[in-house]
Amino acid sequence: MGIGPGGLEHLTPKAKGIIDEAQVIIGYKTYLDLIEPLLMGKEVISSGMRQERDRCARAIGLAASGKIVALISGGDPGIYGMAGLVFELASSTPPDRLPLFEVIPGIAALNACASRLGAPLMHDFASISLSDLLTPREVIEKRLEAASAADFVIVLYNPKSKARTEQIVKARDIVLKYRHGNTPVGIVRHATRADETITITMLSKMLDNHIDMQSTVIIGNSQTFVWQGLLVTPRGYTTQVDRL
Amino acid sequence: MGIGPGGLEHLTPKAKGIIDEAQVIIGYKTYLDLIEPLLMGKEVISSGMRQERDRCARAIGLAASGKIVALISGGDPGIYGMAGLVFELASSTPPDRLPLFEVIPGIAALNACASRLGAPLMHDFASISLSDLLTPREVIEKRLEAASAADFVIVLYNPKSKARTEQIVKARDIVLKYRHGNTPVGIVRHATRADETITITMLSKMLDNHIDMQSTVIIGNSQTFVWQGLLVTPRGYTTQVDRL
Repeated sequence: MGIGPGGLEHLTPKAKGIIDEAQVIIGYKTYLDLIEPLLMGKEVISSGMRQERDRCARAIGLAASGKIVALISGGDPGIYGMAGLVFELASSTPPDRLPLFEVIPGIAALNACASRLGAPLMHDFASISLSDLLTPREVIEKRLEAASAADFVIVLYNPKSKARTEQIVKARDIVLKYRHGNTPVGIVRHATRADETITITMLSKMLDNHIDMQSTVIIGNSQTFVWQGLLVTPRGYTTQVDRL
Repeated sequence: MGIGPGGLEHLTPKAKGIIDEAQVIIGYKTYLDLIEPLLMGKEVISSGMRQERDRCARAIGLAASGKIVALISGGDPGIYGMAGLVFELASSTPPDRLPLFEVIPGIAALNACASRLGAPLMHDFASISLSDLLTPREVIEKRLEAASAADFVIVLYNPKSKARTEQIVKARDIVLKYRHGNTPVGIVRHATRADETITITMLSKMLDNHIDMQSTVIIGNSQTFVWQGLLVTPRGYTTQVDRL
C-alpha cells in the first residue's frame, strides 16, 4: 500500500482504512515515521534501506500465517514501489504458503512533484530511474535518448546518490543533444513535507542545483514554458485551444 | 484539483478539504456525479464534454472576483488534466484579473489502473495519449516507436473513441514491430468504480477486447509476466533480487 508523498492529507481514506485494519505494519523506517500518528497500538516491523526483499518476504510469510499485514511504500507502491517485489517473490513461493494480495495505490512522487511545479505533465511523458543497481547503464541511456528524441516530458527518479553521481551528468548531456539549454526543468525534494524544496531552473543549469536520492527531476518538452514560477506544458502542439 | 479514479475512498483528505472549503464547484458532469455526496448546499457549475476551456475561464473569473473555487478534474489534474489549461489561459489574462492558484494532486488513471492490474509500472514507463485533437499523428507515432524500441512499459490514454478507431490499431502495429505478440497487456475501464472492468490479454490479441475512451491500456515491457492473473514487471534486468 502507498502512503503518498508524506503529508497525511495526501493519504487516501482507503489506505488509512487498511492501516487501521492491519494487525502488522511493515515498512522502511523513514516512511513509518511519516505515518507515526496512525501506528499507535500496532505491531510494527521497521527496517532499513535496501532491506526491501526481507520486508516483502516477512510480509508474505506473516500474511500467509493468517495476519492482516500492511506493507508500506512511500508514494505509490505501483510506481518503482514495493508491489512488484512482493509479486516477484510470491511467484516463486509454494501456492499453499500464499496469502491474498491487494495493491492500494497512492499519490506517487511524480503526481506530487508535478502538482508543486505547476503543470509539467500535461502531455506525454517518460519516467526513467537513473539507478543502475538492477538495470544496465546502456538500457538507461537508450531510454534517455529515445525519450529526448521523441519530445517526451522526462521524469527522472533516483537521479543521484552519494556513490552514484555521474548518471545525472550523462542524462543532462543526452537530453541536451535534442533540446535547448533553456528548456525548463523542475526539481522537487520531499514534496508536500515540512522541509519541501522546489527549484525551477533550465537544462543547461540544472546541475548547479542540489539533487539527491530524495529529489525528483522533471525536464520539460519542446513546448514547456515557465509562467510566474510554474512549469507549464501545453496540452498540444497548437495554441488553438479554441479547438476544444 | 483531482478527485482520483472515482471511488470516494481514493479521494485524499486534502482534496476533500478543498471541496468543503470552496464556495463554487465547477466540473464535468460525470465527475461531479462521482462526488455528489460532497456537494450538498454548494454552488455547482456543471458542463459537458469538450467545454474544458469554458470551465477553466469561468473558474479563473469567479476566483478573481473573490470566490473560493474548486475546479474538478477526474484522476490527477496534473496528468492530462485541467491544471495545464488553467495556466495556459491564466498566462494570457491581465495580472490584475488573476486569483491565487493551487494544484491538488489526485490518484491518476495510471496509478489506479496499475494497482488493479498487479504491478506493471515497476520499471521505466512512457505515457502516451492517442488523441490527435491537439497533437499531430506523426508526433504520436514517433513516440510509440521510441517507447517501443527503448523497452518502456507503455501506458495508453484516450486509446479509442467512437470517431477515432484507427490509432489503437496503428499503435498495436508499431509496438508489435519491437515486442512479441505474447507481451502481456492490461486494459482497465472505470478503475475502482462499481462498474470497473479489468482485462488481461496479450499484444497480438488486445484488439479483440472492448476498448473505449474510458479505458486505459498498459502494454508490458520485454520482462513483464503474468502471474495468477496479474501483470508483473520486474524491477530490473536481472533476477538477482539478492543484490538488494
